[in-house]
Amino acid sequence: MTGFVSLVGAGPGDADLLTIRAVNQIKHADLILYDALVSPEIVSLATNSQCFCVGKRAGSKSVNQETINRLMIRSARQGKLIVRLKCGDPFVLGRGGEEALALTRAGVPFEVVPGITSAVAAASLAGIPVTHRGIASGFIVVSGHADSICGSMLDGIAANSLTIVVLMGLKNRNTIAKRLMKKGWRSNTPAAIVLAAGTPTTQVWQGRLDELGVEDIDTVSGIPGTIVIGDVVGIRSLLHKIEPTRLTAAASAGS
Amino acid sequence: MTGFVSLVGAGPGDADLLTIRAVNQIKHADLILYDALVSPEIVSLATNSQCFCVGKRAGSKSVNQETINRLMIRSARQGKLIVRLKCGDPFVLGRGGEEALALTRAGVPFEVVPGITSAVAAASLAGIPVTHRGIASGFIVVSGHADSICGSMLDGIAANSLTIVVLMGLKNRNTIAKRLMKKGWRSNTPAAIVLAAGTPTTQVWQGRLDELGVEDIDTVSGIPGTIVIGDVVGIRSLLHKIEPTRLTAAASAGS
Repeated sequence: MTGFVSLVGAGPGDADLLTIRAVNQIKHADLILYDALVSPEIVSLATNSQCFCVGKRAGSKSVNQETINRLMIRSARQGKLIVRLKCGDPFVLGRGGEEALALTRAGVPFEVVPGITSAVAAASLAGIPVTHRGIASGFIVVSGHADSICGSMLDGIAANSLTIVVLMGLKNRNTIAKRLMKKGWRSNTPAAIVLAAGTPTTQVWQGRLDELGVEDIDTVSGIPGTIVIGDVVGIRSLLHKIEPTRLTAAASAGS
Repeated sequence: MTGFVSLVGAGPGDADLLTIRAVNQIKHADLILYDALVSPEIVSLATNSQCFCVGKRAGSKSVNQETINRLMIRSARQGKLIVRLKCGDPFVLGRGGEEALALTRAGVPFEVVPGITSAVAAASLAGIPVTHRGIASGFIVVSGHADSICGSMLDGIAANSLTIVVLMGLKNRNTIAKRLMKKGWRSNTPAAIVLAAGTPTTQVWQGRLDELGVEDIDTVSGIPGTIVIGDVVGIRSLLHKIEPTRLTAAASAGS
């Protein structure tokens, strides 16, 4: 008797940014293992499941990856339907690939249910298109967790040629900004930080690349932040003027 | 009396990859203006709306952008709720930013409802994580429509340092592959083409970078294709072995 694991993307935050497929899997799960940042509202969609928070929040202790894998495998072998509920998309900087490989090795059948990644949605919910005709025909998404790796990915990019999105980079944003300017990025390149994208408490800071590092942002409380760098950020100011009410949440701390 | 425009991302294809928010807006719309690639199943979720297909399918005629903007603005001024239904995410290579600016200039209130972009989901639905610990900590998404622009964005990237996703690049894939190899990318870098991601007719080709250009792919019929280049593509083979049935759709043309 083998169960099944669904690696489900919970999207950027709000429950109504879940996909229909994600909601269905959550409702039918026997067991839900969810990341710390998945909202209680989303977890409460489960109708008849055991629900466990398995981390991970920046800076705090969490269940380690090995244990999560073991939990999934053991429960699947008991015939259960397990939903592994991950922030954003399971396959974008979320170790979903590692979990998929562990399940594969254990012979446990699984699927991946894509979710909306903050890499794109944090920007768009704040009124920033990551691409825009004549401004940027592409974007790069990097983890800012390790500034050396992040830097080596960004170093070669022609200055101001596309949009940069940095996830998990709040702590290293000063280093990242300096490194980009050293590589020729204009110091007045528009930049934004979107905190807690897609949730009712979201806040947006908007400024210039040379201000990115010095802006006072809370990096301790574990609120996730997405950094967006590039001329597309300037579009936000244009959209923002007309319809503040519709972008209210995203604009509450906007410039 | 002013209406409202919702720029809604329809996701990669299947109706159950729509978000709850998207479904709600579709159900309540007076008027739906949808891209040609949005599935009939999704359009049929509309309960009491006028629905018009406004393009755009590669190679075929479509309503031009000016006309789409005018239609939205005129209908909004009649007090209607308009859903502008776009493939993937409205702000990823979909001219959503231009539409938002046109609405702003006309004083029409609007919102952006993010959707799952094929840039991420095409890969994950085919069993490819765009990032993976120890393999790639980031990815770049570019439009392959104009190979010179695409090339200039990719040229500086350190060879094999991250994952490349090319949207709208099927026609130029030979040029793109050659350009990357000239810049030092290994000729045996794993590569994949995902056709019609997230739909029942999806097909996946998997091979090497130096085979990408020569593979016989139908680029005429307007089926959208996403190209993924990087070592993460190799993970698909590992996942694929165990559970073909769960990746069936994505694997029907797999290697």
